[in-house]
Amino acid sequence: MKKGERTRERIIRQAAPLFNQRGYEGSSINEIMAATALEKGGIYRHFRSKQELAAEAFDYAWAEAVKTRRHDIDTVANSVDKLKRYVANFVERRGSVPGGCPLLNTAMDSDDGNAVLRTRARRALENWQNFLSSIVARGIKKGEIRRQVSKTKLANLMIATLEGAVMIGRLEQSLDALRDAQIHLNNYLETKVRATN
Amino acid sequence: MKKGERTRERIIRQAAPLFNQRGYEGSSINEIMAATALEKGGIYRHFRSKQELAAEAFDYAWAEAVKTRRHDIDTVANSVDKLKRYVANFVERRGSVPGGCPLLNTAMDSDDGNAVLRTRARRALENWQNFLSSIVARGIKKGEIRRQVSKTKLANLMIATLEGAVMIGRLEQSLDALRDAQIHLNNYLETKVRATN
Repeated sequence: MKKGERTRERIIRQAAPLFNQRGYEGSSINEIMAATALEKGGIYRHFRSKQELAAEAFDYAWAEAVKTRRHDIDTVANSVDKLKRYVANFVERRGSVPGGCPLLNTAMDSDDGNAVLRTRARRALENWQNFLSSIVARGIKKGEIRRQVSKTKLANLMIATLEGAVMIGRLEQSLDALRDAQIHLNNYLETKVRATN
Repeated sequence: MKKGERTRERIIRQAAPLFNQRGYEGSSINEIMAATALEKGGIYRHFRSKQELAAEAFDYAWAEAVKTRRHDIDTVANSVDKLKRYVANFVERRGSVPGGCPLLNTAMDSDDGNAVLRTRARRALENWQNFLSSIVARGIKKGEIRRQVSKTKLANLMIATLEGAVMIGRLEQSLDALRDAQIHLNNYLETKVRATN
């Protein structure tokens, strides 16, 4: 990787916590300069606009969140257990970028305006839905998950329950709502999703 | 109501859609001036700061959302049916302030910074939790809801599932996730919450 590319990646990595905590409008160029220890010209040499930097910072923060949530999931064979591990990772593990879930933050930040960020957030949601759906599809194929389970609906139920609990947890500064969401989802997965012999 | 008070209320009402759609940082004083057709001095005669106006605008948007979600709920006698009506209102009815759920927006907007807004959002959440919890408590007392149901956990489950579905719906520009959340919650309320004879 060339020096320019390395600098670009460093700017993204250092700007990501700022954007994830303060939002697009709340992250001023002065704060981006402070976070990266670069002058304005040094930043805009690598990005055409603040919007481009914010979009790259979101993708970076999302990739970090994805990595954390999928931790060791490949080591779990059964599809229902995979989903349960996913939920456990979501509840117990914090990603490297502070400020809560990048998708929830960016979705709410961009839903009424910023089209570039909105597109990235929507792509991240699709990616998340596809990941969970593919586990469900494979589980049905392998006879581990009931045939009548809708992969789309189950993915959305898991995403909604977890993200809504994140909102409560951010306000209460507590993990209680997330832990209750985990109990609810685990129970649902065991009683309505797992195939019975 | 005096003229000054009427003007103050009008500013709050006209600024609320702006704050709910664009967030605190995204709502500039110029846009607030445009939305209210007042000069800067005319606005700051009624509010000490942008933060005070944003806090009042949030309370207004939240009160409007609460009104919409509790629509006709008093006409429903049974506690489980009351909870189901609440969910139906949430899914089917839109409040008068555009931009999605004011609590979700303001929670995500303020969780890493703005202490005044964060306090208002937290108070709104507590208010919501207490409203649902009190329906559950009364339902247990009347024998309509199973004794072992936790009012706190059920309130949080409903709030999390609905708010997470709002996030998906805002990105997908569709009501599908909310409708699926409603089906899930209704089924849960019928099979795990409603008292059996």
